[in-house]
Amino acid sequence: MAGPGDDDEHDPILDDSIEAEAKTQTCVGGSSERDMAPSAPGPSIHRSGSRPQLDLSKAEIQGNFEERDPTILLPNQSDDISHLALDIGGSLIKLLYFSRHEEDYSNDDDKRKRTIKERLGITNGNLRSYPVLGGRLHFVKFETHKINECLDFIHSKQLHRRDPYPWSSKTLPLGTGVIKVTGGGAYKFADLFKERLGVSIEKEDEMHCLVSGANFLLKAIRHEAFTHMEAEKEFVQIDPNDLYPYLLVNVGSGVSIIKVDGEGKFERVSGTNVGGGTYWGLGKLLTKCKSFDELLELSQKGDNSTIDMLVGDIYGGMDYSKIGLSASTIASSFGKAISENKELEDYRPEDISLSLLRMISYNIGQISYLNALRFGLKRIFFGGFFIRGHAYTMDTISFAVHFWSKGEMQAMFLRHEGFLGALGAFMSYEKHGLDDLMSHQLVERFPMGAPYTGGNIHGPPLGDLNEKISWMEKFVRRGTEITAPVPMTPSKTTGLGGFDVPSSRGSPLRSDASALNIGVLHLVPTLEVFPLLADPKTYEPNTIDLSDQGEREYWLKVLSEHLPDLVDTAVASEGGTEDAKRRGDAFARAFSAHLARLMEEPAAYGKLGLANLLELREECLREFQFLDAYRSIKQRENEASLAVLPDLLEELDSMNEEARLLTLIEGVLAANIFDWGSRACVDLYRKGTIIEIYRMSRNKMQRPWRVDDFDAFKERMLGSGGKQPHRHKRALLFVDNSGADVILGMLPLAREFLRRGTEVVLVANSLPALNDVTAMELPDIVAGAAKHCDILRRAAEMGGLLVDAMVNPGDGSKKVSTSAPLMVVENGCGSPCIDLRQVSSELAAAAKEADLVILEGMGRALHTNFNAQFKCESLKLAMVKNQRLADKLIKGNIYDCVCRYEPPSVSQM
Amino acid sequence: MAGPGDDDEHDPILDDSIEAEAKTQTCVGGSSERDMAPSAPGPSIHRSGSRPQLDLSKAEIQGNFEERDPTILLPNQSDDISHLALDIGGSLIKLLYFSRHEEDYSNDDDKRKRTIKERLGITNGNLRSYPVLGGRLHFVKFETHKINECLDFIHSKQLHRRDPYPWSSKTLPLGTGVIKVTGGGAYKFADLFKERLGVSIEKEDEMHCLVSGANFLLKAIRHEAFTHMEAEKEFVQIDPNDLYPYLLVNVGSGVSIIKVDGEGKFERVSGTNVGGGTYWGLGKLLTKCKSFDELLELSQKGDNSTIDMLVGDIYGGMDYSKIGLSASTIASSFGKAISENKELEDYRPEDISLSLLRMISYNIGQISYLNALRFGLKRIFFGGFFIRGHAYTMDTISFAVHFWSKGEMQAMFLRHEGFLGALGAFMSYEKHGLDDLMSHQLVERFPMGAPYTGGNIHGPPLGDLNEKISWMEKFVRRGTEITAPVPMTPSKTTGLGGFDVPSSRGSPLRSDASALNIGVLHLVPTLEVFPLLADPKTYEPNTIDLSDQGEREYWLKVLSEHLPDLVDTAVASEGGTEDAKRRGDAFARAFSAHLARLMEEPAAYGKLGLANLLELREECLREFQFLDAYRSIKQRENEASLAVLPDLLEELDSMNEEARLLTLIEGVLAANIFDWGSRACVDLYRKGTIIEIYRMSRNKMQRPWRVDDFDAFKERMLGSGGKQPHRHKRALLFVDNSGADVILGMLPLAREFLRRGTEVVLVANSLPALNDVTAMELPDIVAGAAKHCDILRRAAEMGGLLVDAMVNPGDGSKKVSTSAPLMVVENGCGSPCIDLRQVSSELAAAAKEADLVILEGMGRALHTNFNAQFKCESLKLAMVKNQRLADKLIKGNIYDCVCRYEPPSVSQM
Repeated sequence: MAGPGDDDEHDPILDDSIEAEAKTQTCVGGSSERDMAPSAPGPSIHRSGSRPQLDLSKAEIQGNFEERDPTILLPNQSDDISHLALDIGGSLIKLLYFSRHEEDYSNDDDKRKRTIKERLGITNGNLRSYPVLGGRLHFVKFETHKINECLDFIHSKQLHRRDPYPWSSKTLPLGTGVIKVTGGGAYKFADLFKERLGVSIEKEDEMHCLVSGANFLLKAIRHEAFTHMEAEKEFVQIDPNDLYPYLLVNVGSGVSIIKVDGEGKFERVSGTNVGGGTYWGLGKLLTKCKSFDELLELSQKGDNSTIDMLVGDIYGGMDYSKIGLSASTIASSFGKAISENKELEDYRPEDISLSLLRMISYNIGQISYLNALRFGLKRIFFGGFFIRGHAYTMDTISFAVHFWSKGEMQAMFLRHEGFLGALGAFMSYEKHGLDDLMSHQLVERFPMGAPYTGGNIHGPPLGDLNEKISWMEKFVRRGTEITAPVPMTPSKTTGLGGFDVPSSRGSPLRSDASALNIGVLHLVPTLEVFPLLADPKTYEPNTIDLSDQGEREYWLKVLSEHLPDLVDTAVASEGGTEDAKRRGDAFARAFSAHLARLMEEPAAYGKLGLANLLELREECLREFQFLDAYRSIKQRENEASLAVLPDLLEELDSMNEEARLLTLIEGVLAANIFDWGSRACVDLYRKGTIIEIYRMSRNKMQRPWRVDDFDAFKERMLGSGGKQPHRHKRALLFVDNSGADVILGMLPLAREFLRRGTEVVLVANSLPALNDVTAMELPDIVAGAAKHCDILRRAAEMGGLLVDAMVNPGDGSKKVSTSAPLMVVENGCGSPCIDLRQVSSELAAAAKEADLVILEGMGRALHTNFNAQFKCESLKLAMVKNQRLADKLIKGNIYDCVCRYEPPSVSQM
Repeated sequence: MAGPGDDDEHDPILDDSIEAEAKTQTCVGGSSERDMAPSAPGPSIHRSGSRPQLDLSKAEIQGNFEERDPTILLPNQSDDISHLALDIGGSLIKLLYFSRHEEDYSNDDDKRKRTIKERLGITNGNLRSYPVLGGRLHFVKFETHKINECLDFIHSKQLHRRDPYPWSSKTLPLGTGVIKVTGGGAYKFADLFKERLGVSIEKEDEMHCLVSGANFLLKAIRHEAFTHMEAEKEFVQIDPNDLYPYLLVNVGSGVSIIKVDGEGKFERVSGTNVGGGTYWGLGKLLTKCKSFDELLELSQKGDNSTIDMLVGDIYGGMDYSKIGLSASTIASSFGKAISENKELEDYRPEDISLSLLRMISYNIGQISYLNALRFGLKRIFFGGFFIRGHAYTMDTISFAVHFWSKGEMQAMFLRHEGFLGALGAFMSYEKHGLDDLMSHQLVERFPMGAPYTGGNIHGPPLGDLNEKISWMEKFVRRGTEITAPVPMTPSKTTGLGGFDVPSSRGSPLRSDASALNIGVLHLVPTLEVFPLLADPKTYEPNTIDLSDQGEREYWLKVLSEHLPDLVDTAVASEGGTEDAKRRGDAFARAFSAHLARLMEEPAAYGKLGLANLLELREECLREFQFLDAYRSIKQRENEASLAVLPDLLEELDSMNEEARLLTLIEGVLAANIFDWGSRACVDLYRKGTIIEIYRMSRNKMQRPWRVDDFDAFKERMLGSGGKQPHRHKRALLFVDNSGADVILGMLPLAREFLRRGTEVVLVANSLPALNDVTAMELPDIVAGAAKHCDILRRAAEMGGLLVDAMVNPGDGSKKVSTSAPLMVVENGCGSPCIDLRQVSSELAAAAKEADLVILEGMGRALHTNFNAQFKCESLKLAMVKNQRLADKLIKGNIYDCVCRYEPPSVSQM
């Protein structure tokens, strides 16, 4: 993986008017992944979350300087983009582009990975003839009548100059490019694209694109669809094998209603001209609102009964109960305006907006229901930019469908509602292999983007770190609260250039009025479903249900309270410079805004679990270039723990098998106290040294623990009644924290398995998260431990883990043994928790021969996976370092321990 | 039948505040039918068409004199009203009231009728336990928010003080009345009705009323339903036995969609809040129009493409043909307003109105289609006041239904669209017997009512002759053209009081914008289907199809050109007084306005045939109190013809059977030249005496006639090859004109049948039409002829026809012979043509034993019934006195003759 700072990633300058000269890159913090090893500290990683920086060298204003929004040419900017598709509708242009990251095998870490891949039998491209490369899908929109801003955007990013096929990185000669476009604008603007960008448009059928976009989303994005009834959003898990048939209702300017029977099998069965364009067009004329979203926001404060004729108005306040119409049912939208002696000016714009919204949403819901009924369809998916994630709109549509179908049909909404057509156009590039993508290969991230506080915003998501920080600071200066960072594009994106100064109205925005909650879609083809899950379909990683308001409030408060310490640590980790302080402050504001948003709308970013929250925090840190906030803490603790490891190993070796096993488990549980994610523990650390705390902790480990399956585990390990148990073939040890936790807890346990002839795979994070040890740090730690222990040394050597062994790995052609006694693999994630539906292909490969899974620590064994069932044996070990969780999960107290041993699940597989 | 001038028709004064004193009636021209006999000339008849006069005695303004529209109390006014029902919706109040005419057996004519009825075995009430009395249904509407005007209207007419059951004529004591009301207003305004009028409201279910109203209309009104596609209106004949199931869509302020499976069997299956209230409410806010109809009219000049987003706007002017959307399809109503930098004021109200209208109409059509589809219904009837007979609205709805159903379903509209609920409420009075009424018992009349020329109009239909004349004169003074008399209530009726001065914008109104084309519904329970029709279902009276534009233009022109002569004749018939001249002028304007309206919208008053046109002219004459314009002409011609009858009879008696038969038929054909409806003939009359013309005409009768079945008729009458034919049992002779036609043509033919032992029934008009002889005039004529002929005298005596025989008929208890050699019966109509689906019960009874039908004259044998098929033998005799008709019908020339003899039809019966 390479950052934009790598010269070989840059294209020759494409615009003839600009000379191709030596470039000077303004690289704020971007770097490649190889810099992540502890030996190469610095602001160096941008694997996910943060976006490449703008290369401002040679920037110049193009064209007339008098223009309001002049095009800014950034000839040296490269975002490694390969793909571009558009959906140009009557009101909005939806643009989708793909940015790619090529694998880079030039550094040592990648050599290690390659070795492991070969060892585990992983090859690229054996499943697909056209490999999907990792990268990101970005979603941007423009207003159609501001098409020039869209063209400027494409031009400035040179999105049109790439070969449409991502595996080919060549740049096309001017005038030969082809881009896929759907919607009426493909016809209307074809000449303009040719003239302005020198590219040809390949027109893709609108309905076909809508359908293939919807099919892709419903199959590949986990929490894509949701219901919305009475302000309650609920995500719906769609079984990709039981998707068809369904009714797709795309509510754009107008409405298309499509019956979908399968991939490429569909029929547009109906439509209506009363759609988003009608709401906004009529609303504009009636209220003088300046934007769709302003109009939509107005509706929040509206009372439509001042203008609609209700059943009660006709029936003297009574219901017409005989036919099920309550007094508050709208008998005639706008009907009250008939009899009142009022002018337009006498009505509140808020009321007008709400009346319009109810009229149109209800109408769409009703017509959709009637069409679903024709074909006996139970599921109706609503897409299109009209809906805009607006709660009342969705409620109204849902109500209509529910009311008329007497609850037999369900209205469902799509998080990427606006981008179905653009996605479809994107999918229509041949042989990109995207349609094979599975939900486990897509990760959605919610970067800070272009935040949104109610003012008008222009421009694509803020990509530049400095822009983001400045933005935050601007709000600090103005005293304006940031409550709703919009993860992706703003609701009213109009191309390049900053954003309008937000109105200082003070009151935080209602979340309703905010824009789409969609992030950047990271395509990670190397992610897989953990193969040892007993039933991936029913697997739910999160243990705590954050849709419970009490739980949500508690955990959001915990995160909020922990924030100042985290910022201090992060700033300190980078030497406490002014720059670090600025970034730390911006991070705090950004993450607070995320928390505020989630507090108000828990499902803003999809189904919310603690795992997502913790990952969001890590991503947010990375976005503000805090690549490893706990680096120095981890280093210090690793060193201190390695220093006492020899004594510990000696102590263990002096015990009999049975005592040793108990001491080892006690050690894992005791060492798990070193967790910088726990407020209580952080307070502890101030009171003693690591080894003191460890010993104190282990001494307190009095059985029975709160959850105590030790006897069963011991019997499995040592046998009973003289019967010798068969040894485990391979154990996967999911490690947690750096320092004592891994070195004094998990490594001795690993050594015990190695001693018994069991292969050990240490599974560690791919990216830093709190003080968790990463897969890149772990080999050094093992090497350090191996110095004091032959068992570890031999195993590490055979597994190619020792650093000195890394310099001469097999050169790829040589056959490598697929088995090694000790391996380190990355888990594919950068969070304290783990979602086993999305793990690295290495881990998935390593898991195939494993017959024991050990999950250690709160994040991986309690917050997530506490209830996970596996096809093999599993051991979940953790100390509970939070009173509420102890209460909830084990009806115990803080510092209680969990040792949960389970035989292979015999559940449905 | 009694007019309002009869004292015994008046109720005691009902309002306690007004004393019951001797009344002075202002009787402009009303009189009872007994005055119609030629022996009692004068402006005396108001049997149909014209309405009773206002009794202004004791009139006083009630309440505050400062009020803009003070209530005017007319305590002595009586309109003989028995029934009242209302439908109070969100926007409009629909009011229905019934005015009754009791039979009056006190005069000689009615004695004669009673005798005939007894003779023919006709009794009242043998079919129904609750007799339906003849009367009229009036349809009025008000705006709901002007409920007080409605209450004033009811109060002034004392509509609420009658027993709801029409066969009981007692007046209710104050505070005990009950009226049937449906719609939400039944709940909302119940207290107001009690307080203001002292009556209780009986609430009737809205849906139930809609359905029973629709069922009644579809079964009982012949041309109730029609289709409307691409500006073409086509009436649909619904078979009452094949009516169910259907979908009823009532478009009021909101829309109710009801599946109707039978009488009282229905379900409200859907509805929408986007209805008429939405169009008018939004339209009012957007255009500042002052009335629904103004808004509707604006739409006529609109171009919605300035504001709607069309498919072509999105697709750069192209179709999206793949899914069948043309460039001009509306993709998004009001969608163009999004992208344009325009304010509301920058759009033309015309365009806004049209865009709204298309949006809402199309939406209603689509939702209706989808609901019809659910239940597999092919027929959708649209009712409710939104549609308002507006062509574009109906076209849009029809287009939607046609488009989505791919032509499989039909949108149909109802002429009484707005009154379904009110009719249903009316029907809900128990045991009124109305629901048994059949279409042949209902006659719709289109009086001048409150005419409409684009200005705002207030007030119920103009009932007073003077009002009507003044109204006409006012327009003459202002030089404003009257092009669209509205037959019934004006489009914006608001209660009592005159009407606003119409705007003098000069340009005639587009017919589209005019109001509902519904007339006053005359309930004539004594009408029946002529029992000798071979197939009443397929019977169509009119021979010429006036939906052909050429035909229509021609015949409207003929009527128009004939108008000055007709007016002269009419004015002269009343002595040429100033009053007669004033009325004549008003009649000419009124009838011209009807013609102008029909020229522009042929189907304005239902399916248009020549018969309707000619009847409309007669009704219009009667409305302006020209009760018998040809009275003196008829008298003169009768006298002249009777004078030459003896010579003619002598001539005939001198011939052998065969020669006599030919001479008789020649005589009928020759005498038929005396027709004041034919322009060519009227010119003839100026050139000679009756007898000269008759003889000249008969001498020209050279066989073969253009249509000549004489030989077949002769063979039937006289036999051939020595075979003696069986004589006819009873012949019905439909006579035509007075004077020579009946006296020298038909009476001698009748005499021949009598001579051969065949009973003869002379069938004559009930009311005057041109110079046609009426059933009331005929006995005198027969008596006059009988003076010269024993055959006629004996037969007339036996049939009770001679005037001296009328003084002592059977007193009712005495058994009367059901057979008489010569009878006169009225045909039930007052037009030169005859629709055999609606004839008097006397004629129907007389027809039962008839085995020969003879139709004579252009009106009854050519314009209508030329192609009629009978169960018995028929003979159609006429001289063609119009070149175009001769051309068209028999490919002949003016004065060609038709003698068409047909054996009994063996068609489907």
